[in-house]
Amino acid sequence: MQTVFDETEFDKYKSIVQQALDSGNFVPIDRLFNEELSVVDLAHLLESTPSKVRMFLWSFIDEIHQGDVLSYLNDEIRQALLGKMSAEEIVETTQDIESDDLADMLQQMPPEVSNRVLQLMPSDDRSEVEGLLVYPEDTAGGLMNTDVVAIRADVTVETVLRYLRKLELPDSLDMLWVTDRDSHYKGSLALPRLLTTAADVTIADIMSTTIKAIDAYADEEHVAQIFERQDLISAPVVNGEGILIGRITIDDVVDVIIENADHSILGMAGLDEEDDVFAPAIKSSQDRAVWLGINMATAFIAAAVMSRFEASIAEIVALAVLSPVVASMGGIAGSQTLTLIIRGMATGHVTRSNLSWMILRELGVGLINGSLWAIVIGSITVIWYHSFSLALVIAAAILVNICLAVLSGTLLPFILKSAKIDPALSGSVILTTLTDVFGFLTFLGLATAFLL
Amino acid sequence: MQTVFDETEFDKYKSIVQQALDSGNFVPIDRLFNEELSVVDLAHLLESTPSKVRMFLWSFIDEIHQGDVLSYLNDEIRQALLGKMSAEEIVETTQDIESDDLADMLQQMPPEVSNRVLQLMPSDDRSEVEGLLVYPEDTAGGLMNTDVVAIRADVTVETVLRYLRKLELPDSLDMLWVTDRDSHYKGSLALPRLLTTAADVTIADIMSTTIKAIDAYADEEHVAQIFERQDLISAPVVNGEGILIGRITIDDVVDVIIENADHSILGMAGLDEEDDVFAPAIKSSQDRAVWLGINMATAFIAAAVMSRFEASIAEIVALAVLSPVVASMGGIAGSQTLTLIIRGMATGHVTRSNLSWMILRELGVGLINGSLWAIVIGSITVIWYHSFSLALVIAAAILVNICLAVLSGTLLPFILKSAKIDPALSGSVILTTLTDVFGFLTFLGLATAFLL
Repeated sequence: MQTVFDETEFDKYKSIVQQALDSGNFVPIDRLFNEELSVVDLAHLLESTPSKVRMFLWSFIDEIHQGDVLSYLNDEIRQALLGKMSAEEIVETTQDIESDDLADMLQQMPPEVSNRVLQLMPSDDRSEVEGLLVYPEDTAGGLMNTDVVAIRADVTVETVLRYLRKLELPDSLDMLWVTDRDSHYKGSLALPRLLTTAADVTIADIMSTTIKAIDAYADEEHVAQIFERQDLISAPVVNGEGILIGRITIDDVVDVIIENADHSILGMAGLDEEDDVFAPAIKSSQDRAVWLGINMATAFIAAAVMSRFEASIAEIVALAVLSPVVASMGGIAGSQTLTLIIRGMATGHVTRSNLSWMILRELGVGLINGSLWAIVIGSITVIWYHSFSLALVIAAAILVNICLAVLSGTLLPFILKSAKIDPALSGSVILTTLTDVFGFLTFLGLATAFLL
Repeated sequence: MQTVFDETEFDKYKSIVQQALDSGNFVPIDRLFNEELSVVDLAHLLESTPSKVRMFLWSFIDEIHQGDVLSYLNDEIRQALLGKMSAEEIVETTQDIESDDLADMLQQMPPEVSNRVLQLMPSDDRSEVEGLLVYPEDTAGGLMNTDVVAIRADVTVETVLRYLRKLELPDSLDMLWVTDRDSHYKGSLALPRLLTTAADVTIADIMSTTIKAIDAYADEEHVAQIFERQDLISAPVVNGEGILIGRITIDDVVDVIIENADHSILGMAGLDEEDDVFAPAIKSSQDRAVWLGINMATAFIAAAVMSRFEASIAEIVALAVLSPVVASMGGIAGSQTLTLIIRGMATGHVTRSNLSWMILRELGVGLINGSLWAIVIGSITVIWYHSFSLALVIAAAILVNICLAVLSGTLLPFILKSAKIDPALSGSVILTTLTDVFGFLTFLGLATAFLL
């Protein structure tokens, strides 16, 4: 058996599948899927496959493994596969899936399907999943599962060890939670501590109170920040009364962190992190058309501003050539600030409490870089168009536009957030509209006033 | 004692610090830093503070806690603080830091300082850290620490429990690694399994072989993918001979995931993920000036293309107004594709093996969205400028530019990667240059050929 992970192996699997599909001989796929690949690899392979082929490949996976593969798939793809199954098949396939994952899946199904699935489930599982469905998917309650092991502070290590021996513990269990007789969370005990402490020591003497419980309604991004800052592996979740109701594990938090990153990265291009990367052209075109439309509207707003100065442009054609330069320098300077602020807000470093310092700092950056590039671009203009007055006008416009751009980049995320608009999604398009309009207005306005 | 984490608390701390700084009465800072805040909170507070104030606040932290706080700080800030200390102070402050974190810090110091620090360290610690310094910071070897607990497959549960009782186990220990007599990695055993198995069972019967060892020279991004896909908490690291040399834990992997996300997000604006968000204006201006310079160069390339058509623009001023619209639609369509491909490459979903499918799909998207927006923009042009021939020209230019843009967006990341250039950093600026140049060339070229 191979014990070391091999980097290049995965591309080999993809080629085997491709060759089998091309040749029509599916025996290699069958062998690969049911003997060689782990469920994790299978999920990754399905995600890397065009959506039409994916359905076909899915049928090669043994029914007993389908549930496991499902739990590793991205949301959109998983729901597409589940959408092809009857409620009976869904219950069958998902019976070994963890309750928190199952609750997530049910929340994304049409209500008539999810209700039918719940009815068909064994009553134990049903009540567990129903308990989780109370909490929205993007809260601590939506992330948690209910397999907690709680112990009391007044018992000895020996008692706990004897108690644990009777349970079926998940491999991922790293902490026991200490509660009082009414199930209020009191502290934590790491498993290794239990193994190295003498049998007659009381839990109260070795438990830790560093890990605070998380409220079930806390936002998932906030949960991610707590895990990140404190390097947690798992954390206890409590309800409004402080009663322990579940635990969140790092693997689910990693998914949240990656989803948030995807959202920030893809959101800037108007894309959705849940979309299937291998969707067919028609579906992809739809996903992206709205964003192109919004950007077209903003491009026409900028064009309308420019067209107010058609008379000036007709007289000095250089204005048409240089206008996009002024607009683009503002766009770049502004998006640097915008990116920094949005990221700082996401990590919790930039808040209202240091906003005024940020505004002053960004204005400083705008003045320094604005002056620098005003001089450079002014000089290039003198050399290119042999006009000192045109150079002065473009230099002034560059300075003004860069300063306005960094100010907009700082304030916009705060304004959008107060208006409950996601800055990661709409920040860059609004900013570019502003810097285009500012850029055309200052440059063409100054040129019309001083050059004509 | 408070057992539930409170979201709003953190902003309160920031205000207390701000008030103390404003009033010159530093007693509240002292109390906050040494009684109320955890080292994690202290690190976060320092990261959220302008760099000048940061140095001052640092001096309020008790020396015995400074090392812990350091290990939670972002790289640039940590190195700045360490840069103010002598080698003796560094050894003193960092004595409780984990060996992998310390090795990272040393790799970023000037060699004369790091050599001096190593000389001053106790010889045990030194040889441990020196063993880690062999591996570059961004490899599995750079991420691992050496506190592994290895057991043999032929012993019983009872023997292992007795052995563990003699050790000092870290709280984060979740797995024991099974090795043969020559320390070759063979498999893993989760601690909970050990607790629930009868004392006379042999390890070989309960160990798992699902977790593959990671090669010490594997890239850290690859390590992150392995953790992500398999939901690992820790993984064994082996050298070229398959000998177990360390383990990687999820907290370090989470840092890699966040750094990679930061790199993708900030890189698109030419920013560095290691930079201090609260650097003073002069330093920030320097960090951003190069990017503005590069973008200025590309803006002038586009301007130079446009200036070849000055005669046409002088005759039909509408061309000046509409050119930026054509360029910007290409820029948006191209950056959507570029973002999708770069992200897909980072997650391992998009590889050479499905590139040809991607090209065809994106070309499909380009034709569909290109046709759609060609019709819309053509119609707006007819209404605005009452010229059917101008509308035909802009419609054709939009269609051509969007198709070229999606093609460039698909191929560019692969070309850049083959040339060992980071697509996340330079992809968007190269793409925008291409779409600007394509846009001006097709629109103004077609206009000159057919309208004049």
